Amino acid sequence: MQLMVLMLVFGGLLFADEGMYPLSEIDNLNLPGLGFDIPADELYNPEDVSLIDGICKVGGCSGSFVSDQGLILTNHHCAHESIRDASTPRRDLLEQGFHARNQAEEVPAEGYKVRITVDYQDVSQEVLSAVSDTMAAGERHQAIEDRIKELEIEAETDHPGLRADIAEMFIGRTYVLFLYDYLKDVRLVYAPPRSIGNFGGDIDNWMWPRHTGDFSLMRAYVAPDGTPAEYSPDNIPYRPRRVIAIDPQGVNEEDFVFILGYPGRTYRNRTSHHLAFEYQMRLPMRADLYEWQIEVLQGLGANDRSVALKLASRIKSLSNRMKNYRGKIQGIGRIKLIEQRRQSEQGLQEFIATSPAYREQYGNLLDEIAAVYSQQQQRYPYEFVLSYLRYSSILLRTASTVYQRSIELTKPDLERRKAYMERNLAQTEERLFERLENYVQPADEALLLDMIDRYGNLTVPRQIPALDDIFKTNSRPARTARIARKMLKKSRLSDPEYVRQLLDVKPEDLAELKDPVMRLAVALYPNYERQRDIDDECSGKLDRLHNLLVEVKQAYEQTAFIPDANSTLRLTFGHIRGYSPADAIRYHPITTLDGVIEKRGDPPFDLPDEIVSLWRQKKFGRYEHPHLKSVPVGVLYNMDTTGGNSGSAVLNARGQLVGINFDRAYEATINDYAWNESYSRSIA
Amino acid sequence: MQLMVLMLVFGGLLFADEGMYPLSEIDNLNLPGLGFDIPADELYNPEDVSLIDGICKVGGCSGSFVSDQGLILTNHHCAHESIRDASTPRRDLLEQGFHARNQAEEVPAEGYKVRITVDYQDVSQEVLSAVSDTMAAGERHQAIEDRIKELEIEAETDHPGLRADIAEMFIGRTYVLFLYDYLKDVRLVYAPPRSIGNFGGDIDNWMWPRHTGDFSLMRAYVAPDGTPAEYSPDNIPYRPRRVIAIDPQGVNEEDFVFILGYPGRTYRNRTSHHLAFEYQMRLPMRADLYEWQIEVLQGLGANDRSVALKLASRIKSLSNRMKNYRGKIQGIGRIKLIEQRRQSEQGLQEFIATSPAYREQYGNLLDEIAAVYSQQQQRYPYEFVLSYLRYSSILLRTASTVYQRSIELTKPDLERRKAYMERNLAQTEERLFERLENYVQPADEALLLDMIDRYGNLTVPRQIPALDDIFKTNSRPARTARIARKMLKKSRLSDPEYVRQLLDVKPEDLAELKDPVMRLAVALYPNYERQRDIDDECSGKLDRLHNLLVEVKQAYEQTAFIPDANSTLRLTFGHIRGYSPADAIRYHPITTLDGVIEKRGDPPFDLPDEIVSLWRQKKFGRYEHPHLKSVPVGVLYNMDTTGGNSGSAVLNARGQLVGINFDRAYEATINDYAWNESYSRSIA
Repeated sequence: MQLMVLMLVFGGLLFADEGMYPLSEIDNLNLPGLGFDIPADELYNPEDVSLIDGICKVGGCSGSFVSDQGLILTNHHCAHESIRDASTPRRDLLEQGFHARNQAEEVPAEGYKVRITVDYQDVSQEVLSAVSDTMAAGERHQAIEDRIKELEIEAETDHPGLRADIAEMFIGRTYVLFLYDYLKDVRLVYAPPRSIGNFGGDIDNWMWPRHTGDFSLMRAYVAPDGTPAEYSPDNIPYRPRRVIAIDPQGVNEEDFVFILGYPGRTYRNRTSHHLAFEYQMRLPMRADLYEWQIEVLQGLGANDRSVALKLASRIKSLSNRMKNYRGKIQGIGRIKLIEQRRQSEQGLQEFIATSPAYREQYGNLLDEIAAVYSQQQQRYPYEFVLSYLRYSSILLRTASTVYQRSIELTKPDLERRKAYMERNLAQTEERLFERLENYVQPADEALLLDMIDRYGNLTVPRQIPALDDIFKTNSRPARTARIARKMLKKSRLSDPEYVRQLLDVKPEDLAELKDPVMRLAVALYPNYERQRDIDDECSGKLDRLHNLLVEVKQAYEQTAFIPDANSTLRLTFGHIRGYSPADAIRYHPITTLDGVIEKRGDPPFDLPDEIVSLWRQKKFGRYEHPHLKSVPVGVLYNMDTTGGNSGSAVLNARGQLVGINFDRAYEATINDYAWNESYSRSIA
Repeated sequence: MQLMVLMLVFGGLLFADEGMYPLSEIDNLNLPGLGFDIPADELYNPEDVSLIDGICKVGGCSGSFVSDQGLILTNHHCAHESIRDASTPRRDLLEQGFHARNQAEEVPAEGYKVRITVDYQDVSQEVLSAVSDTMAAGERHQAIEDRIKELEIEAETDHPGLRADIAEMFIGRTYVLFLYDYLKDVRLVYAPPRSIGNFGGDIDNWMWPRHTGDFSLMRAYVAPDGTPAEYSPDNIPYRPRRVIAIDPQGVNEEDFVFILGYPGRTYRNRTSHHLAFEYQMRLPMRADLYEWQIEVLQGLGANDRSVALKLASRIKSLSNRMKNYRGKIQGIGRIKLIEQRRQSEQGLQEFIATSPAYREQYGNLLDEIAAVYSQQQQRYPYEFVLSYLRYSSILLRTASTVYQRSIELTKPDLERRKAYMERNLAQTEERLFERLENYVQPADEALLLDMIDRYGNLTVPRQIPALDDIFKTNSRPARTARIARKMLKKSRLSDPEYVRQLLDVKPEDLAELKDPVMRLAVALYPNYERQRDIDDECSGKLDRLHNLLVEVKQAYEQTAFIPDANSTLRLTFGHIRGYSPADAIRYHPITTLDGVIEKRGDPPFDLPDEIVSLWRQKKFGRYEHPHLKSVPVGVLYNMDTTGGNSGSAVLNARGQLVGINFDRAYEATINDYAWNESYSRSIA
């Protein structure tokens, strides 16, 4: 036994490493040597049933099928919007929790989709055949986007009923076509009360030690014939090809674990210039804005629970991102990440200088990347105002979407922006109406005014004539405020029925409407179009440059790279392991119910009386951990995760579920830029 | 080796315990069994030289003689006032540190005294022979006080040159006469810069992990003939009877350590009623007041370094107490200490009920104690205002002291309040002028006005006619403010020369002075006298009741009690040991220079460049710890300490100095009320 543990420790130290492995890499890994007790084809097997058939993407999260009746285990925070939607001020499910006693009581989770990976294939050749070296940056980017759209439609035609999505693995370099089952009828089955599902709230969010019971149950339904279908009372539970087993024994320190999930985005293959832009500008400006917006929105909901409910998901999302950004800023500074990356780039530059051929092809590469980010940094204060203008006001965003949609619909399907293609249009519209449900006029007013104010304070030349014209941004603030208030009050866009009618109106007629918010959206449209062109051009340049960068880095470091996360299915593995966040402090990797009781106090640290009383009686039953003599609550591990991995099953060496991944430790918020054994820890 | 460590662990777990043992208890301890490598008479030997001869009390702290030339190692915060006094805005020693290159450069530390314990004897019989059972509470207390004064004077007459002090060990029950060497010429030798001596400032104060270099060196001088003398350039360094050796090897986890020092006050033998009074009233009211006062004083010093220097010690002291009180409040609540004690009192009450004799003698004991505290709790809001009125204004305090002094001097020596007896008068006057040196009019004004305001808001009947009369407390606040400002401006009491003249003025003439602050002091005098009578009566009652409580608790628990700390020499011992402040967090008991660098940032976490550069070069020389491969900075142990233990040498099993005690962990601020192996940790 002692020997076993030691071997696991060494195994961990030797092999645990950065890694969100794409499916294509699984065959290259020596699974038994890494700690797996199951063969590779048990993980993924295109010919037969494997663990992957029990894993899904649900909403923006990951989930696992834990019953043959389509029951999905995911996080409480992943089901948050569906719980909120099912709540009313009198029946506040976010606060009290929810338990459907039978399938009839389950609540449809509007806007939720379930995606199950069925197959994938490398289509880099097909995608890149659309570009030529003579193309300008923006043109190149557009050509790739167009080809991807074509290939996706082609694949969906070849595989009726499946959904096709092409993911860019290495920027501008490799592309993989994924085929998914796509289930559209998802329902809420169980959510714990807030005092369990969000115990510790924003204070504990992104923190270890953690005592949150961040889990919920949903269920996927299909048509009686087994095909994906929109919600219908006649639908039947989906029968997953594979059910993930739960191991009630839980875990011990240094146990081997792995995750199959859908990590969102990482930026590990970017340069120091990208990091510097994030660190100096994008992250702090956004974090500051979010902090201010949260304060305003909380103030508005303070005395009105119905307003608070409407704003709850938005505040939660802003808080979550704000703390994540602050953690990143602190982490980048603390480990001097920019400095580190600069040094490795200097090494690369010296390597390039050693060969005339390299000099010829890559000599200016880093300087060119630097130039792109330098321009981006200069433009950012303006772009920040422009983009958050629309994101901050739900009405303006609604108007902008309606107007852009009307223009896009005049184009052939393949030439439209992705969100407005036939295969995506329904979802785009659905999101539009979802947002509208949570419209709160004073919130729109405060946030919109703030953005106009920020525009007024920009030191760059005035580039948004619509704001100058409509809000007289040069005049007294009180006047601007009056105009904004009047505009929001007068607009009919807060009425979903009216918006629904507008979906049939042509762009030229929308432009003639008297609705003041629509007028603003129309007036701003050229700014947003111009912005998209600039973004495309910038992406096009970076596509080409990053493509070259990966080439020369592979030559320099003589290693294969793992592509950055891109919301496709990835494997990561590691060990249940604590860490030292600072000198003389050591975090143990398992928290217990005793710790929950220890933290108990005012909200967000309040608890249901039942929990306290069961704890007092030490009635732990089969949930008692044999070593800890208490009920385990949180576990920590050194696996490589990021946003999107929320809800992922944490699986033991035998592929049994032992936890649900829901967060990272504060120090690990910089996982998005760099992974490190000493601080990269995730939480289940 | 493995066995050794295990034995130490078990030794620690079995024997480490609550305990600030008086000298009289040392012979009852089995020192080798506890971990000592030296015999008891090496610790304390009235017939010969022992470790105790190398230990002293310096200012309110403890210290150790580390050279035969009177050099004393103590804390930076213990020398704080002397460093501040030697500073000017141009030569800011608090900020830059100080290093006397030779004895001539040493700076006299005004007001500092060094006390070395020479002998002690139990005088309980002699003290208690002054009281009879028929005495009223106040009368009883007065009788004890008077007898103590007589015995002290007697002892000083018998031992010329020594200082005698009688300490109450168990309230109203046991008394010990201590004889001290009392050195009056103390000088500052070395102080590190603030960025070392107070690294981490108020943020890290009362916290572990800790990285503060809280040490300084002072030197005691005597007359050329070796007798204690006031400062004179002709004085020579004091030659201690024993020099404490330093072990440069430092410590390892689980090493045995002990402290001989002067812990100030603890309240472990008090009841739940005392705790409830502290928790509900005294601690929160004081902490809130201090927090507010700190803010005001910091604001006043923000733009003027000379004002900031004058207020520095006061702010430091307020911050220190505030955080200590907050820690206590949190700790009492967290471990439900009041509840715990109530339960053990219930057990005691049941025990009393088992015997008619006990019932007869102790039946109402706990109820009577409860009644005393209940009255105290009712009076406290008024008493709080009354006492802080004087403490908050330096001028008013000066006037009060001058006036009370003049009245006391009309009485025979033995009948005076202790501070005004001939043997204490010089020190009382010295402190008076020290305070006056730091007078800052706007500070006095703001703090005085606040107390008047608090008086105005009291819901109890108005009991301070002087405030009503002088400040028209019922009228508009602006008017009160005008009167207070005028009063402080007009007063001449900020002039030390004038105050010195007043020391020769009789009470009836002081009462006739036109000085407005003196007039206020005179008018308030009856309130303070009445308060002292009430305090005496209350103490008298508690003397008698606590005496009975100790009696019956000894019968109930069948154990001997260790008396509460009372600034007399105590032994405590334990082990270098970490702890768990919360679920899944473990603190290691040794911090290193790496951790200092980790914390480096804006003040109070700034560092001298030299430290950073030496750390970069890893030039640790003989200061490198063999296991940690860095320089140890802070160490943590489970010994039982409290305020007054600051500056104590932490000694290893062989009696060699391995650290200087300077603080407790936040969780251990409640040491004053209860000691516990799981959280009582102190810091060197």
